[in-house]
Amino acid sequence: MTEGPLSAALLGAGMISLYHLRAWRAMGVPVTAVCDPDRARAEERAREFGVDRIYTDAADLFEDGGFELADIAASVEAHDPLTRLAADHGVHVMLQKPMTRSVAEAEALVDYVGERVRFMVHENYRFRPHYMTVRRWIDEGRIGRPRHAAITVRGSGLCPRPDGEPFLVERQPYLRQFDRNLVFETMIHHLDVLRLLVGPLQVVAARLNRLAEGLPGEDTASILLAGSAGLIATADGCICAPGYPQLHGDRLEVVGTEGTVVMDYNRVFLVGDEENAVEVDLLGRYQECFDHAVGDFIVGVRDGTPFETDRLDNLETLRLMESVYAAAGVEAAP
Amino acid sequence: MTEGPLSAALLGAGMISLYHLRAWRAMGVPVTAVCDPDRARAEERAREFGVDRIYTDAADLFEDGGFELADIAASVEAHDPLTRLAADHGVHVMLQKPMTRSVAEAEALVDYVGERVRFMVHENYRFRPHYMTVRRWIDEGRIGRPRHAAITVRGSGLCPRPDGEPFLVERQPYLRQFDRNLVFETMIHHLDVLRLLVGPLQVVAARLNRLAEGLPGEDTASILLAGSAGLIATADGCICAPGYPQLHGDRLEVVGTEGTVVMDYNRVFLVGDEENAVEVDLLGRYQECFDHAVGDFIVGVRDGTPFETDRLDNLETLRLMESVYAAAGVEAAP
Repeated sequence: MTEGPLSAALLGAGMISLYHLRAWRAMGVPVTAVCDPDRARAEERAREFGVDRIYTDAADLFEDGGFELADIAASVEAHDPLTRLAADHGVHVMLQKPMTRSVAEAEALVDYVGERVRFMVHENYRFRPHYMTVRRWIDEGRIGRPRHAAITVRGSGLCPRPDGEPFLVERQPYLRQFDRNLVFETMIHHLDVLRLLVGPLQVVAARLNRLAEGLPGEDTASILLAGSAGLIATADGCICAPGYPQLHGDRLEVVGTEGTVVMDYNRVFLVGDEENAVEVDLLGRYQECFDHAVGDFIVGVRDGTPFETDRLDNLETLRLMESVYAAAGVEAAP
Repeated sequence: MTEGPLSAALLGAGMISLYHLRAWRAMGVPVTAVCDPDRARAEERAREFGVDRIYTDAADLFEDGGFELADIAASVEAHDPLTRLAADHGVHVMLQKPMTRSVAEAEALVDYVGERVRFMVHENYRFRPHYMTVRRWIDEGRIGRPRHAAITVRGSGLCPRPDGEPFLVERQPYLRQFDRNLVFETMIHHLDVLRLLVGPLQVVAARLNRLAEGLPGEDTASILLAGSAGLIATADGCICAPGYPQLHGDRLEVVGTEGTVVMDYNRVFLVGDEENAVEVDLLGRYQECFDHAVGDFIVGVRDGTPFETDRLDNLETLRLMESVYAAAGVEAAP
């Protein structure tokens, strides 16, 4: 429980920080400082959102203090040192997924932070409106008890384009060197959602493939998972699938004792009752998941209630992600 | 190559033989004898199609002879002895899938028959019109080279019903004792189609589950497959999925270098070009696959051309099916 008014500092002023800052504003909690090693980037975000204090060095930021919350939206390599700094200064942490490169690093980080500050992971798919609809329908008992599941991720972001590089490479040039593309970057969301909807899961087997030319990371993955009471699930992704939108979309199906729910891109329906499908404006409502995540963090810090995506819960998702690479025969990260 | 006019004998006068007899009639090849241990059943089919000769003992049938082709539509236990009898009498064989309970039995049978007679397996999914459309589109180059695939089988045939037993149990009472339900009976078709569309496959891992109460066989299966050049595929089935039709339907997706084709139950479309989907009247065109299979058999026997579903090709599908049970930890059939 944290008394008094709250304020936050943002660490990492990249593309995604825009949505983070909007969410803090929507939740009425002031962001009083922005920190990024790239000063121009930090300044731009600060100006946009009327933030006075700008830092390029996180040590200086925490030394000066004056905020109770840290929103760490930096790149994954910076997650561990920034979270440690925050904890050492008694600042509560909301950390962008994935926590760290590996489960071992994340476990060490969670240990280091201990119970000194509240520590949640920013995992936005649970809070995306189409996924929240599926979850609410399951919670309402519309399909009974979930017993079988399948999730599919499809996009064309890595397909060749006549007029230049693939869309995702142009947008995220680091993919040219990045060895863990689809599962680490994207399908970790889907593994998290599956866990949430059908309970604990283990990876039985996985295969990865590279369909895009010249990139070191996988763009295609098929994963077989097992849960409790014999439950089985599949997670199948391909972001080099011609015809699909460049940004991936998902298809999710959960078979329950009483019904089957399907989320097909932006439509959620009970199988056999398709005419009563709910449609979600995915782009128009993209900001919502950030608002929910930030709102959940604020409530948790204020009231001491558990976070929806607590570090310990998220560790399970990270374990699942890591075991996909292990099952696929990919060496652990150095 | 077989000269002169052809005629056939039908062995096994169960439910499916209706479609077989219609196909023989459509192809203009007379069926001159019907054999079934259950005389009443044999008589009914014979009367319906104007067949004079009725047998309850296959040895008598082959002793009397007078036909060049045997259509073996009997239950799987009878496949091996009936095929041997036919071969010993120089009669060409069209044998209902699955060839035998196990790969070892099928290999022994194929060896025994050798090249004495032509021997094809009746595998109808390749010849079903929606699957033929997918195949034709791939052959026409509409998606380029296939590189990733996923197939889903869904039905509610084993879901509890308020007014009695599940639909499939009522229709196929042997399921009460049958230990190999979904993969052996049904998904063998889907494995065959996947092989056909994306090339040779191996089972990486598989899990089976039983969601229906009181039945010994699996009704849910998730299978991870690997092909050449790193290709991966999933096959996921559940025939205890509430909301779906009682008879299962399929969803198939093949991602290629140039496009992605989806077959969603009865619609075939290229992703991104859904408005030009082709719809297939599955029930109205159900007979077609039998006509095609019988037609293929007749041409092959007459002209000596390879069968689409030759015994050696089908052995590969049977191997895939058997390895699913092995991968799932189910003991080999006795």
